[in-house]
Amino acid sequence: MELSALTDAVLGRIFVELEASARHVHITKSQALALFGHDLTEDRPLSQPGQFLARERVTVLGPKGEFRNVAVLGPARKEAQIELSLTDARHLGLQPPVRPSGSVDGSPGAVVKGEKGSVELQQGVIVAQRHLHLKPETAARFGVKDKQTVSLRTFTDRPVLFQDVLVRVGDSFEDRGHLDLDEANACGLKKGDLGRIVL
Amino acid sequence: MELSALTDAVLGRIFVELEASARHVHITKSQALALFGHDLTEDRPLSQPGQFLARERVTVLGPKGEFRNVAVLGPARKEAQIELSLTDARHLGLQPPVRPSGSVDGSPGAVVKGEKGSVELQQGVIVAQRHLHLKPETAARFGVKDKQTVSLRTFTDRPVLFQDVLVRVGDSFEDRGHLDLDEANACGLKKGDLGRIVL
Repeated sequence: MELSALTDAVLGRIFVELEASARHVHITKSQALALFGHDLTEDRPLSQPGQFLARERVTVLGPKGEFRNVAVLGPARKEAQIELSLTDARHLGLQPPVRPSGSVDGSPGAVVKGEKGSVELQQGVIVAQRHLHLKPETAARFGVKDKQTVSLRTFTDRPVLFQDVLVRVGDSFEDRGHLDLDEANACGLKKGDLGRIVL
Repeated sequence: MELSALTDAVLGRIFVELEASARHVHITKSQALALFGHDLTEDRPLSQPGQFLARERVTVLGPKGEFRNVAVLGPARKEAQIELSLTDARHLGLQPPVRPSGSVDGSPGAVVKGEKGSVELQQGVIVAQRHLHLKPETAARFGVKDKQTVSLRTFTDRPVLFQDVLVRVGDSFEDRGHLDLDEANACGLKKGDLGRIVL
């Protein structure tokens, strides 16, 4: 971190740890049954409390390509969602919208294959809009609200100021900034790198 | 484009058209002979005068993967260079440095295969540092010099301010900003989108 960045930290600006979200899939309980014959099982916890990387893996197929060994995140959700980067989407031959997580109406579908079966999703493929998870007290301290957008300056090898970063505030959140792999690579993100919220 | 962006344009700020550079290869004349049995032939011209996309295509192989049908840019150069995004590099199992074009010392190598033969490069794989090509008169008008870095604000679907953008000034250049595919996707670049230089 540069000295100016440290100085800002001392002055109490909003720093959050940044994380890259590689391509991954969320599925429902009944889809887990169809794909694996059982519900998702935990491999390791993720930074957001309660969320985990599942032991189960899937293949995702689009009209022009496929990805094998794709991560599945748990716990199971009410609706399936496949989060890709735009680079990934091009490989599959899909044109997903950039959306907040959970907003899948009208998005393209894909086929998901597990070791016991496969599921054809009619929709659910999105590029997750870059976003911040903030605890309510962190958000309050800095005067930002759930669903507003802010800019985020990265203190990384290839520094970038990302605009239109969605703020999500929740009791169960850890403070983190989430970028997709295109964004993470565009800024040269390494594990533990920080970002600063710019209002 | 937003109204504020238009206003800036009217006020004479520095707008340049942005282009995405997908993965591509530069080779020498003798490598062209080894790979294809003849020198590169032109498919279509690129935005920078004298540069062209070759009809010839290659496969690039790294320790963990390969890309087929990779673009070769002409004319032939004095030294080979393979320009990838960090996403591409991970697929191949390589960890190339982010470098200005032409700066390949100590970078990783890769195997390049053509229809007539293959070449093992000892070095040459880089991630091209994002950069601007400017005519001397454009650079002079805005007070920027060859090899300095500037920031570049994108007027794109996912707006970003890229820092550390290298300025290259040359008599033979057209004014353009060049991003790799990670960067282009991180900002949602579409053909014809503009960027503005921020000093």
